Amino acid sequence: MRDVAVIGVGMTKWGELWDKSLRNLFVESALLAIEDAGVEKIDSMVVGCMSSGLFTGQEHLASLLSDYLGRNPIPAARVESACSSGGLAFRQGFLEVASGMSDVVLVGGVEKMTDVTGCEATFALGTAADQEYEGYHGLTFPGLYAMMAVAHMDRYGTTRDQLSMVAAKNHDNGSKNPLAQYPFKVSVEAVNKSVLVADPLRILDCSPITDGAAAVILCPLEAARKAKKPAVRIAGSGHATDTIALASRADLAWLESTRLAADKALAMAGRKVEDMDLFEVHDCFTIAEIMVTEALGLVERGRGGRAVEDGLTALGGKFPVNPSGGLKAKGHPVGATGVAQVVEVVKQLRGEAGERQVKGAERGLTQNMGGTGGSALVHIFEAG
Amino acid sequence: MRDVAVIGVGMTKWGELWDKSLRNLFVESALLAIEDAGVEKIDSMVVGCMSSGLFTGQEHLASLLSDYLGRNPIPAARVESACSSGGLAFRQGFLEVASGMSDVVLVGGVEKMTDVTGCEATFALGTAADQEYEGYHGLTFPGLYAMMAVAHMDRYGTTRDQLSMVAAKNHDNGSKNPLAQYPFKVSVEAVNKSVLVADPLRILDCSPITDGAAAVILCPLEAARKAKKPAVRIAGSGHATDTIALASRADLAWLESTRLAADKALAMAGRKVEDMDLFEVHDCFTIAEIMVTEALGLVERGRGGRAVEDGLTALGGKFPVNPSGGLKAKGHPVGATGVAQVVEVVKQLRGEAGERQVKGAERGLTQNMGGTGGSALVHIFEAG
Repeated sequence: MRDVAVIGVGMTKWGELWDKSLRNLFVESALLAIEDAGVEKIDSMVVGCMSSGLFTGQEHLASLLSDYLGRNPIPAARVESACSSGGLAFRQGFLEVASGMSDVVLVGGVEKMTDVTGCEATFALGTAADQEYEGYHGLTFPGLYAMMAVAHMDRYGTTRDQLSMVAAKNHDNGSKNPLAQYPFKVSVEAVNKSVLVADPLRILDCSPITDGAAAVILCPLEAARKAKKPAVRIAGSGHATDTIALASRADLAWLESTRLAADKALAMAGRKVEDMDLFEVHDCFTIAEIMVTEALGLVERGRGGRAVEDGLTALGGKFPVNPSGGLKAKGHPVGATGVAQVVEVVKQLRGEAGERQVKGAERGLTQNMGGTGGSALVHIFEAG
Repeated sequence: MRDVAVIGVGMTKWGELWDKSLRNLFVESALLAIEDAGVEKIDSMVVGCMSSGLFTGQEHLASLLSDYLGRNPIPAARVESACSSGGLAFRQGFLEVASGMSDVVLVGGVEKMTDVTGCEATFALGTAADQEYEGYHGLTFPGLYAMMAVAHMDRYGTTRDQLSMVAAKNHDNGSKNPLAQYPFKVSVEAVNKSVLVADPLRILDCSPITDGAAAVILCPLEAARKAKKPAVRIAGSGHATDTIALASRADLAWLESTRLAADKALAMAGRKVEDMDLFEVHDCFTIAEIMVTEALGLVERGRGGRAVEDGLTALGGKFPVNPSGGLKAKGHPVGATGVAQVVEVVKQLRGEAGERQVKGAERGLTQNMGGTGGSALVHIFEAG
């Protein structure tokens, strides 16, 4: 396989964007990535999107978007893996270049979520769970993650305050990210007192419903070294699955697919997790980030709550987690999230992250997952 | 890139299968393919499915299916390109092996379409068209293909009888395929007299709504030569897009994406279209097959109607098209179709096609398209 690098990134302001359609959102980010990369020709594209069918009544998405980007007849593929659709798109784009099938590949992620009612959005997101064994019994994602939180609190003594500290930390970081949907700070107290959604999870434990897109340009490393901006090499890619039904898991308080994907990506890169300077991870709920830090091996099993309390995962800490603000503050347009994580890591490794820059960052990791961890994608990035 | 081969194929009887769920359908075909290949270990899988969200309320599909197949935690990706989702899944699986990322890959396609009402199915299929510019004005696929048929008849003198001859030929072939949804013959007269759907297309011009799945196993060619069954090499892969809105096309009576995908696949294989012994193509409507034979270069532009009338595309003709019965007789579970085309070509090249065997077949071509040709995938296969 050829070495592959990211040479361009693009993302616009996320939010509740009623004046923009799915195709607008995608094209805006894609054009920014193309401009950032300084390329003219695109050989193929891959789009991550979870459920444009249920959210906007539109499938056949990649062809539509290649057309609106003015790029048809290039090969264009859409991939889906629930909330890890963006991470999966990135991996497929990596394979396109690594295999030699394409030289310059656009990878984008997009989700337009606010053109439906709250009930419809909850149903659409619920399709990431097992409909026959979970959905039909009324389970939705706040409920599923609430059960994971209860299991984690019971087993390891994780506290309500520790959950809130994840939200407070990510909003601190997000307040420095002008593209974030909610770029403001929230206190631990405010999270603790916010409306209850599914005990113990409160509204400020949850990532929001978001319209947004993100895009990156990939090419062979050799060509990347002649590009406009510093090359960021994709050193490792890991992908694993688990049961999508939480009921089928051996352990509600552990994310095995994340562990396996991380092991594969790190082995491919020849690195240890401690070698990474920053982490963009899937904090769809505060408990998720706590469990991800454990599954990645940043801390021992059960110590994820303590890690945030000790400042280990803060912007100035030993392992900065979610400098972008994470899904919590930046927003979570489900198909776009995995690609936006890559956008952040590339900006950090280029030293373009402004107020939220992790000083001297040379290596970063992204972790994106679907549902309650039924799928997980981990990628490792290195400067140059 | 490594040379890649198909070493196993699996498919069950298609139809209106109310006693089987999406996951049942997929697992049955996948197990048959695994048994046919004689492999134990699967490294990764790719699933093509158009709209499990709208048809069954289930996304996150690849993880779900890898679990139900007893294969989690392997990497599992779902891809979507409307009715060419199966062809796209096949291409992604090919890339997985060609790149060296995986050695043994399961590629499956599935669609469960009959658990919704006719209106809901029509809406779900309509998401392959441009919702904002076609769907909202009431256009559905019979209407779109009817316009293509009118343009073709007007420009080239294609006749009502020639459309019917496509249906009659494919049902002749399908009557020899025990897995077909409608394994019976229909006469030209019966097609001509069947209920009008969208003038000039009648009900027997249309492929049916179908529940079904199909699966194949891929591995490096070198390993394939030691497998249980004769290896079938993937000699070429082509993928192209076009506008998904018919209104944006320069020519309603021409399938440019199919032409481009075929050119790429044939160039990769170092072959001409005349070198092929059989063709499995996307006859979602009778007019589609006529236009595909032209786009593939089997006949000159405008001569597709004459080709079927002259018997050129019959089972015993110079260019046998759709020996399996095609989408018309075999059925069209949209995400499965592209994979089922590969199943048929592999059976033909192995000499396992029974009554519908193309004698001495050594090379075959599959052509799968999305919507009215907004995407197209062409693959070339060679014995050994």
